Amino acid sequence: SGMVGVPGTAARLFGALAQAGINVILITQGSSEQSISFAVQPADARKAKRRVEKEFAFELEKGAIDGVRLEEDLAVVAIIGENMRYRPGIAGRLFQALGKNGINAVAIAQGSSELNISVVIARDDESKALNALHEAFFLSDTKELHLFLVGVGLIGSTLLRQIQQQADWLREKSGLEIKITGLANSKKMLFDPEGIAPDAWKARLEADGEPMSMARFVERMKALNLSNSIFVDNTASEKVASFYESILDASISISTPNKIATSSSYLQYQRLKQIAAKRGVPFMYETNVGAGLPVISTLTDLIQSGDRILKIEGVLSGSLSFIFNNFREGTRFSDIVREARKRGYTEPDPRIDLNGIDVRRKIIILARETGLPLEQKDVEIAYILPEAVRNAPSVEEFFKELKAADDHFERMRREAEEEGKVLRFAAVLENGQAAIRLLRVGPEHPFYNLSGSDNMIVFTTERYSERPLVVRGPGAGAEVTAAGVFAEIIRIGNFLA
Amino acid sequence: SGMVGVPGTAARLFGALAQAGINVILITQGSSEQSISFAVQPADARKAKRRVEKEFAFELEKGAIDGVRLEEDLAVVAIIGENMRYRPGIAGRLFQALGKNGINAVAIAQGSSELNISVVIARDDESKALNALHEAFFLSDTKELHLFLVGVGLIGSTLLRQIQQQADWLREKSGLEIKITGLANSKKMLFDPEGIAPDAWKARLEADGEPMSMARFVERMKALNLSNSIFVDNTASEKVASFYESILDASISISTPNKIATSSSYLQYQRLKQIAAKRGVPFMYETNVGAGLPVISTLTDLIQSGDRILKIEGVLSGSLSFIFNNFREGTRFSDIVREARKRGYTEPDPRIDLNGIDVRRKIIILARETGLPLEQKDVEIAYILPEAVRNAPSVEEFFKELKAADDHFERMRREAEEEGKVLRFAAVLENGQAAIRLLRVGPEHPFYNLSGSDNMIVFTTERYSERPLVVRGPGAGAEVTAAGVFAEIIRIGNFLA
Repeated sequence: SGMVGVPGTAARLFGALAQAGINVILITQGSSEQSISFAVQPADARKAKRRVEKEFAFELEKGAIDGVRLEEDLAVVAIIGENMRYRPGIAGRLFQALGKNGINAVAIAQGSSELNISVVIARDDESKALNALHEAFFLSDTKELHLFLVGVGLIGSTLLRQIQQQADWLREKSGLEIKITGLANSKKMLFDPEGIAPDAWKARLEADGEPMSMARFVERMKALNLSNSIFVDNTASEKVASFYESILDASISISTPNKIATSSSYLQYQRLKQIAAKRGVPFMYETNVGAGLPVISTLTDLIQSGDRILKIEGVLSGSLSFIFNNFREGTRFSDIVREARKRGYTEPDPRIDLNGIDVRRKIIILARETGLPLEQKDVEIAYILPEAVRNAPSVEEFFKELKAADDHFERMRREAEEEGKVLRFAAVLENGQAAIRLLRVGPEHPFYNLSGSDNMIVFTTERYSERPLVVRGPGAGAEVTAAGVFAEIIRIGNFLA
Repeated sequence: SGMVGVPGTAARLFGALAQAGINVILITQGSSEQSISFAVQPADARKAKRRVEKEFAFELEKGAIDGVRLEEDLAVVAIIGENMRYRPGIAGRLFQALGKNGINAVAIAQGSSELNISVVIARDDESKALNALHEAFFLSDTKELHLFLVGVGLIGSTLLRQIQQQADWLREKSGLEIKITGLANSKKMLFDPEGIAPDAWKARLEADGEPMSMARFVERMKALNLSNSIFVDNTASEKVASFYESILDASISISTPNKIATSSSYLQYQRLKQIAAKRGVPFMYETNVGAGLPVISTLTDLIQSGDRILKIEGVLSGSLSFIFNNFREGTRFSDIVREARKRGYTEPDPRIDLNGIDVRRKIIILARETGLPLEQKDVEIAYILPEAVRNAPSVEEFFKELKAADDHFERMRREAEEEGKVLRFAAVLENGQAAIRLLRVGPEHPFYNLSGSDNMIVFTTERYSERPLVVRGPGAGAEVTAAGVFAEIIRIGNFLA
């Protein structure tokens, strides 16, 4: 310290190296830097150190120079081109590509002729850096996204098909090259930095897959250390969700329809949000509510622009929507539940739908997005099933008890009808409270005309007070859920640009 | 060329400078660079050049060195800190901030001790760079957005109020600091890089504003050359829209409810899209269709994720929605139009609404987003008004003629009713064709239950084929339009992160 910038120091330094016949690859000394750095070939490194120490022996002894530090296992990457300085943002693109991928610059040099920007990085980061820079500069603005998909059931395999069908369009129109870099089902996992062809994944996973372990999947994903990595969880697994924290902390984005992480403890939800914000990586889960319908993004836009949410009402379950939309004069409640089950709208045991547990997870997520620290226990659920129905020991018994309760349901329906209303089983968030209720709604309410198995989300806000903002459509199913995840992956890709 | 990297060249260079007593601020020589760059104080510049030329006179003469080039009017900005290299992404954040603001790095130096990254830039960019870096590093992750607002009518002034009310929340929760840097109405314009307080803009514009000229507004905005600049056009002016191209080309983002640029010639629409893509800046206009309703973003998500749009149906006008929703048995068409006018839903001359011109602009924009190069003339409009009504010379005469046509409308209504249907005046995009038609829809159609003055957009796609995705709500009004623009500004802000 104190020597750098002093006329003659640089001259003596490079004079000494020259006398020793050592070629200097790169030099850099910042404007208020207390040191001067230069790079030489690994073979020359020790010799260079000794030679410089000899030259400055006196200054080293009296402490005018702190020491000569040798750093090893480094690599120099450089981008080279004519007139780069006249193309705005070249350095920006370079360092953005490195920075977004967590690659540190040990040293940087760019001369004013700017034919070249050189960056010294850790040798371990070399291939990741080359990859990121290759995309950033040479693939005619094509950007590679590296997907790590866990879960290849209905949603996962549909997503893979959609990606395959849309790959050319995305490459051409949006400059996105989507690579399936990692893939796993509950038994096997497979990695390929070159990408697993989305039309051949099944055979390859079967043939080349190694035994699946979620811990090792995450470890491998981190070790691959690839640019623009996105983890996609297409499971409903608690185990998988428990790894989100460490995934986000490694600067890897997440997109998922899995509701576990966002709807379990508020503390976990909050921690994941904070880590994602700290690392600057997206953690997205639009498909948690209403599948591909624009629900969470709409809510976020309202809140960010300062609207005040007065009420959110949601028919958030396709099966419950179907059941109550079709419960009309001349029908029997138990028949409709049976029909819903036959069509595959409900779980094999329809009570899993009718007890409102899944809807509760969804309204909790919406509540948390509005800033409320709600827990599951804070959501009051109206039990619409009489106790005997609820406690029936089997599905068969359940239907028998439900049939016996048909009069009970018919009475409720008729009471509503006499007021000109219909029954809707919906989640309601209002005054900081969330509840799941059997509502009676009249023709003035958007729920009144709901049909089929549509979801409907009704936002009543300060700005949408007289008439609400309503989103409606199928809120379940592999096609639209996978499409929602896919759209989210593309949004993340655009953000990582 | 050929001399750099040769042992001894650097030594002779810095030896010569040392002998002349010239302090070197910054040195940089890249790994395959054909030159070596160094920075000195302006006062030393010419002396340094002469001294180096003298030292290398022989090499210069025989062409082993190309020349000594002096660059002036430069500035060095540096970020300095302990252990910066162990905090991922510092260089990334630095160059991202510079790059996104179009600031070129003339030279860069960062030593391996990384206490310092120095960047040589044009002196003209100095304050912009300091501003951008200040935000990027020191405002505890707060990012400044610089808004340039043209138009302070109903929408513009509402937006200013919303910004004022939401400012604290955005600073705290989203790390966004919104500054009104430029502001104009049709008569006056005002600039303040420190920000115009959004609760005092009216008085300040009146007192301190200079005469407005759009050309000078754009010129000043570019000359201010501030980081994260966003141009917000709250007018419906063709003149203002004609400047978008040059604004985007200057790397300034645009958010606007003004439909002129997006719905006039396809060539213009396409050119603006291309320039925005080339410059990497957002050009956004969600509020062009349905005001604050999520219409264009939903369509974009569908298309990008590979869904195929089969049909878009839209009731895209609040006044036309109101008129046909309320045209029921026992009413007269002319009375309802009069009522709509009284409530301020229609223009003073309701024919401007009833002729479908504004709706045409909206369906053209949606069509173009799906990839169709439609022009206004390609959209077939059903003229619902009889000729005498259309050609009435005054508004008073118009209502007289409309009253005379009540039977005509009642006949149409009754014909629909006999089929169990209702009339809806809507835009339809299907099979590459756009049209505006008076539809008859039955109870199975989402339009059937439309009420009030709501807009409704129905997306029927390959994935939403059996049941469409529907967005519904108020699609006009200052509050929701301004809120839509505000949400868009925040999205742009997050992108510019």
